[in-house]
Amino acid sequence: MNDNALMNKAADNIRILSASMVEKAKSGHPGGPMGGADFINVLYSEFLEYDPENPHWEGRDRFFLDAGHMSPMFYSVLCLSGKFSIDETKAFRQWGSPTPGHPERDIERGIENTSGPLGQGHAYGAGAAVAAKFLKARLGDTIDHTIYAYITDGGIQEEISQGVGRLAGHLGLDNFIMFYDSNNIQLSTTTDAVTSEDVAKKYEAWNWKVITIDGNNVDEIRKALTEAKAEKERPTLIIGNTIMGRGALAADCTSFECQVSTHGQPLSAAGADFAQTVKNLGGDPENPFVIFPEVTALYEKRKKELNDIVAAKKARYNVWAKANPELAAKKHRWFARELPEIDWASIGQKPDNATRAASATVLGVLAQKVENMIVASADLSNSDKTDGFLKYTKAFEKNDFSGAFLQAGVAEFTLSAMCIGMSLHGGVIPACGTFFAFSDYMKPAIRVAALMGTPVIFIWTHDAFRVGEDGPTHQPVEQEAQIRLLEKLQNHHGQNSMLVLRPADVHETTVAWKMALENAQTPTGLILSRQNIKDLPAAGSRYKEALQAEKGAYVVQDENDYDVILLASGSEVSTLAEGAELLKADGIKTRIVSVPSEGLFRSQTKEYQESILPEGKKKFGLTAGLPVTLEGLVGADGKVWGMNSFGFSAPYKILDEKLGYTGKNVYEQVKKLL
Amino acid sequence: MNDNALMNKAADNIRILSASMVEKAKSGHPGGPMGGADFINVLYSEFLEYDPENPHWEGRDRFFLDAGHMSPMFYSVLCLSGKFSIDETKAFRQWGSPTPGHPERDIERGIENTSGPLGQGHAYGAGAAVAAKFLKARLGDTIDHTIYAYITDGGIQEEISQGVGRLAGHLGLDNFIMFYDSNNIQLSTTTDAVTSEDVAKKYEAWNWKVITIDGNNVDEIRKALTEAKAEKERPTLIIGNTIMGRGALAADCTSFECQVSTHGQPLSAAGADFAQTVKNLGGDPENPFVIFPEVTALYEKRKKELNDIVAAKKARYNVWAKANPELAAKKHRWFARELPEIDWASIGQKPDNATRAASATVLGVLAQKVENMIVASADLSNSDKTDGFLKYTKAFEKNDFSGAFLQAGVAEFTLSAMCIGMSLHGGVIPACGTFFAFSDYMKPAIRVAALMGTPVIFIWTHDAFRVGEDGPTHQPVEQEAQIRLLEKLQNHHGQNSMLVLRPADVHETTVAWKMALENAQTPTGLILSRQNIKDLPAAGSRYKEALQAEKGAYVVQDENDYDVILLASGSEVSTLAEGAELLKADGIKTRIVSVPSEGLFRSQTKEYQESILPEGKKKFGLTAGLPVTLEGLVGADGKVWGMNSFGFSAPYKILDEKLGYTGKNVYEQVKKLL
Repeated sequence: MNDNALMNKAADNIRILSASMVEKAKSGHPGGPMGGADFINVLYSEFLEYDPENPHWEGRDRFFLDAGHMSPMFYSVLCLSGKFSIDETKAFRQWGSPTPGHPERDIERGIENTSGPLGQGHAYGAGAAVAAKFLKARLGDTIDHTIYAYITDGGIQEEISQGVGRLAGHLGLDNFIMFYDSNNIQLSTTTDAVTSEDVAKKYEAWNWKVITIDGNNVDEIRKALTEAKAEKERPTLIIGNTIMGRGALAADCTSFECQVSTHGQPLSAAGADFAQTVKNLGGDPENPFVIFPEVTALYEKRKKELNDIVAAKKARYNVWAKANPELAAKKHRWFARELPEIDWASIGQKPDNATRAASATVLGVLAQKVENMIVASADLSNSDKTDGFLKYTKAFEKNDFSGAFLQAGVAEFTLSAMCIGMSLHGGVIPACGTFFAFSDYMKPAIRVAALMGTPVIFIWTHDAFRVGEDGPTHQPVEQEAQIRLLEKLQNHHGQNSMLVLRPADVHETTVAWKMALENAQTPTGLILSRQNIKDLPAAGSRYKEALQAEKGAYVVQDENDYDVILLASGSEVSTLAEGAELLKADGIKTRIVSVPSEGLFRSQTKEYQESILPEGKKKFGLTAGLPVTLEGLVGADGKVWGMNSFGFSAPYKILDEKLGYTGKNVYEQVKKLL
Repeated sequence: MNDNALMNKAADNIRILSASMVEKAKSGHPGGPMGGADFINVLYSEFLEYDPENPHWEGRDRFFLDAGHMSPMFYSVLCLSGKFSIDETKAFRQWGSPTPGHPERDIERGIENTSGPLGQGHAYGAGAAVAAKFLKARLGDTIDHTIYAYITDGGIQEEISQGVGRLAGHLGLDNFIMFYDSNNIQLSTTTDAVTSEDVAKKYEAWNWKVITIDGNNVDEIRKALTEAKAEKERPTLIIGNTIMGRGALAADCTSFECQVSTHGQPLSAAGADFAQTVKNLGGDPENPFVIFPEVTALYEKRKKELNDIVAAKKARYNVWAKANPELAAKKHRWFARELPEIDWASIGQKPDNATRAASATVLGVLAQKVENMIVASADLSNSDKTDGFLKYTKAFEKNDFSGAFLQAGVAEFTLSAMCIGMSLHGGVIPACGTFFAFSDYMKPAIRVAALMGTPVIFIWTHDAFRVGEDGPTHQPVEQEAQIRLLEKLQNHHGQNSMLVLRPADVHETTVAWKMALENAQTPTGLILSRQNIKDLPAAGSRYKEALQAEKGAYVVQDENDYDVILLASGSEVSTLAEGAELLKADGIKTRIVSVPSEGLFRSQTKEYQESILPEGKKKFGLTAGLPVTLEGLVGADGKVWGMNSFGFSAPYKILDEKLGYTGKNVYEQVKKLL
């Protein structure tokens, strides 16, 4: 245990650096970091266990920052820990610097998650805690690290806290410790203006252990963290009452603490005096970007302790690995995201089945083959057919993570964010299901996953108006065009930030699952039908032909010298095939193209694209989404039959007739086009 | 008070009708309605006050169903109340029937909200309660109706319950009574599998009054509703423990209650026996679509009571209206959504200002002119500049709704859904603000508003990467293309389901606000800049020229015989103007087109569209969104410069340079194009 005076000095060092970063950048959030400095200093100098030599060490404790605007505090403590140079803190919020306004996932630098959109970070933490529990159930005590999250008033208010609070409590995630930096101030107001909830009581209602402390007091922070680590039944919420802008002074040296104005702008802009504040905290206003020598020593000492801790852990691990070579090999493969051999071609699909059912067939195989896969559903497992996986395993329960299924309840957003957290943790391959219409709820989380390159698999069933009787609230229309926007948006590695696949029949569904599992770079979305779909025609093995889906689009059926290209994704391709028969009888020759992913298709060579959809050839697109879903592919050479309005409640075959999704209408529309 | 045996008979009648509707449709949810029948019967036969002769009477109690899948129960009780015929219940879930799978807003039929996506309905209820409080603060005791909501296990789990619970408790919405139909069963599992939260304790933590009852017991329901109506400080949650599939029998006449299988399919498909069940409930399995004579009498009696209640209320109202003619006239105008005269042309905009600041200027005028306007923000009022409104009023507080501003805290989804609820209530004009990147969080609610045609105004600021230092999590890219999908999607009245406006300068912002306020048919989104924008060139009054925005797109500046059309929305239009200057110096003649709304533009005559963007003319589009945002307008005649990746953290002027959003790059790209 370190001397408290030294600890306070280190916290002041974080305060000075934080305030200085914001001051220099003329942009950012100084007040929160100055309040949270004490906790983050105690955590990093005395509790958080990681390998200073190997940031990727899978045995590390994970720290998930929820409140990305607290980045100055985070970069400061990481600077003390040797992950950032002083010059890099000076480049805060500047072009090309490693210190952007909100932290972006960078394991080398000790940053587990991109943060900013409040609430999501703590959901990632809860998801990571689930992953750790899952792994511990399989690998025993070699998995003994702790998941920390840091949340603020905004995150506590965000709706997702309902899902995370409920599930973390229900599942008894005792490996999850969340610090709530409660400073009673948010961007626009004091918190009193928007809330009078009893946070402790609420988390107790969710079955959390709650400890309330002075969040600026080193001893209380230590005691709380120690208690939390000892807890063996529940997740712990440490409510730290902190002082916004702690140490801030006005020009006349009176206190400038607890001011809303210091939330989101430099101290000087907020009305405080930067120089007086730095002086008050023991720094030199002329040269504030400094690590005090005694603080350097404190963190050097911590580094040595960590080296010892890690060495001891690794020694214990090696003993275990020797005794359990198979498990150790598994563990290695899982954290390397190595897939087992899967004989995709041999997966027996029932012909003419719904693609959600085909997905269930694949999931049944994966449940038996991919031992580190976790599947989850937002109370729709028997409808989104993730039960194809569940029937070979069981759902997680408090104190029993031997299953591999998360029944998340009705909470699509929490579900998606927790699966992202599982993936960020590493060692597991998460997939989650719900109705496609409800992908809207997941978008905020998918966006951050797309930015981070987190390979979560989203299983979206009931892909169009053919939901039928449930009506327009449950019938996606604009969702396919919407989610495919992420295929057009690149991540910072130059990849399409998401892979979205809408397979055309059961065999293409097998292929889509293959692609999803093999995609370790970005999230993948699978868009699946509720209703049965007739298998597409094939000259030989339909599965082999469907493998061409790996290029995003391919020719399903071709006639020499065809008059028109018919293109679609999902079940509309089989409707085109019906239409093609009618056209053929009329002497009109067609090419049928299935486009499970426009984004992937656009990533192929120009030559390939031109070979599938040659310019100048007439094209007819059929989509159960908005016409714009296919207009980019059809271009000026043809037309698209799509939905122009919300759907309607009725049996889906009636809707097919009423809305023109029949072979007959394809025939008629193509005749008009030619 | 009615005889309990009769009340139970009426509830059984609802059970029979509900089960029969699902059975006949071969689709739907029978179990929940059979459990909730007792509560809904007590509510409609003894408590809910409305005018049987005038469904639109503004003094009516509002009933918001959260769980749309409980539609059979709802249609059944509305059938008993004379709002639906027996034949219409028989047409449940069929094409063209007024009884779709999930209820769709239809005031004539007594349906206040479209439901289905769980959780949203109770947020509408809380919003309606806020609207009623707001009106009561202005119109006194003429506003004395109660807002009811009906929620189930799924809705209680949905994340939005966090926001609604917090805000309704914080604001002391004692006019809000929510029945929680707790049957411990959801679609996939019993609730035990996903939650162990103490719901009563949680709502108490949010400062609600909580009453727990047997939800199938008439006396307990009555007592709870009476207590709840008497509560004068807090919203009330009535937790009704109910029995899923109450009265259901198997073929051997053993109980088939409390079965997960009866949640989402006909009783017969679930394993129960439909005929035995109907018999058990006192009906005739051969002819189950019947209202029992004594139940008809019960609801006839209620109708008479209601006529008396309403007559008395109207008499009291008339006395008040005579004494307060000005207030009465106001009330009439507010509920008719009549706008006051606003001299839009005279609104003094500071030149070259950010459009969010221009929006604040307009909001300042509206705060003084539009007395029934409510503005809200998700903890960003000083950043989304809704504080332009706030400075003329104050925020709502418990027991004081004399202000007109809702500080919603960090809860964008709740904010949007509650504003929708305010609008559904009527009498008020709600608008809400947040950052455009966070429109993602609002999408699920916007979609339902678009379907219902609810005219909420969304104020989205920080419209592009020029958010700057906050970085990619806060920088919208795909959001403009995403939200404009709703401009392409029509509601069931054949209108674009949303109006989305991204004004190009301060004057166009005034016009955009004019359009938003005048749009009483659909939601409107205003997409506004963080940074200053140079006013567009104008031959005469720029405001007058900007009025052409009412056609969705218009010519800002034109040269005879122009070589190329430059088109954009928002601040990119002024960048085009810079580029046009450079091109002019080079002898290249341009036309500049501002397109605040492609959807609206596409609703104009073909002639108008062709006059603004003639086919065959070269076109260059500039967008800070994805290129696809403008590709539909530019077509094959040109190219679009847009964002292909997530943004970056840096000062926005640096980003403009790095990403090519300068007059110079416009010049270079256009040169390449020509």
